[in-house]
Amino acid sequence: MQPTPRTIPSRLAKRAQYDDQTVYSILDEALFCTVSCVINGQPFSLPTAFVRYENVLYLHGSVGSHFIREIEKGIPVCITVMLTDALVVAKSAFHHSVNYRSVVLFSSAEKIESYEQKAEVLKWVTEKMVPNSWEYLRPMTESEVKKTTVLGFKIEEASAKIRTGMPIDDEEDTALPIWSGLIPLGSGRGTPIADDFSKNVPLPEHLRHLQ
Amino acid sequence: MQPTPRTIPSRLAKRAQYDDQTVYSILDEALFCTVSCVINGQPFSLPTAFVRYENVLYLHGSVGSHFIREIEKGIPVCITVMLTDALVVAKSAFHHSVNYRSVVLFSSAEKIESYEQKAEVLKWVTEKMVPNSWEYLRPMTESEVKKTTVLGFKIEEASAKIRTGMPIDDEEDTALPIWSGLIPLGSGRGTPIADDFSKNVPLPEHLRHLQ
Repeated sequence: MQPTPRTIPSRLAKRAQYDDQTVYSILDEALFCTVSCVINGQPFSLPTAFVRYENVLYLHGSVGSHFIREIEKGIPVCITVMLTDALVVAKSAFHHSVNYRSVVLFSSAEKIESYEQKAEVLKWVTEKMVPNSWEYLRPMTESEVKKTTVLGFKIEEASAKIRTGMPIDDEEDTALPIWSGLIPLGSGRGTPIADDFSKNVPLPEHLRHLQ
Repeated sequence: MQPTPRTIPSRLAKRAQYDDQTVYSILDEALFCTVSCVINGQPFSLPTAFVRYENVLYLHGSVGSHFIREIEKGIPVCITVMLTDALVVAKSAFHHSVNYRSVVLFSSAEKIESYEQKAEVLKWVTEKMVPNSWEYLRPMTESEVKKTTVLGFKIEEASAKIRTGMPIDDEEDTALPIWSGLIPLGSGRGTPIADDFSKNVPLPEHLRHLQ
């Protein structure tokens, strides 16, 4: 993908990535996104499940949802996804950070009208939520497909932003006897991992319940 | 809080809750929110850390961030938070769902100018991320506070939306020999919990790696 003025971050642009595979891998790991749009000049946003297939991100919702009925008109949307991998615990509060993988996507909806294509997307959503479950479930009915709106958003203007690795403390702080490192997220709060400057620093009491 | 036309969901309004304590408890458990605003008619949104204190939600960011510099003007924002507790696995794809606790908040920024108040909010953010760590860290410097913008958003127009409990299948499906129940989220994918209609149904192969 080509960067555009609105997909180039104003801060820490070196963390941005534009290749399809990086963007797709984040979209495929995340179960939920936040969709934002403008209605009468006011921002609205909603967290929801989604699935990616090739270069399209798909959402579904009830045909009765006001939000879906607004965005199905094809108005501009901004879709964000964030996976949070770890809290980055530095020796100073200022250098605390988060290891994350996020995507920001600008697009607009194309409503999927074909019965077969709608049914296919609903299968993909189910398989993303619970892999290999589709054939096991009670088959979907025609009426269920008809009660559901499916929208596709081309992934043509998007960027990923990624932070990995240990805290980056001020040079003069690195020798301080203060524990710094990562607290993994995602499977609750996991075991703290000390960085190179903390190998001989005891884990402080307020972090020990994570060991 | 009083419901307003934009905080009453168009779908499943019975899931909405407006009491302060419910909204605050979700905001206090979630580490990250998504902030959306409108710039030149276009929706923009960004995931970020936050902290609540009394009836105000606080964000912070670099004074150099374009996004922060737009929302600090006091333009309307929509802030969403979602905690995902479980995948709800029904006997039909149509009745699959998610147990979640979400908040949607409409507000606008007030820039915090007082040095002491900024420093206090940065302490709250740090303590939310890593409880009881503030006194242990290298003290914050005046220059660090000055490099950071802190914005407060009054929590006056907000709603929580919550789904809990087991799947709700169609009456005629409840006797089918298909496993249904919950897959806990939050600490990775946890052990599936069978519902009342699945006590004697073996867990299917594609879910067994979660046991």
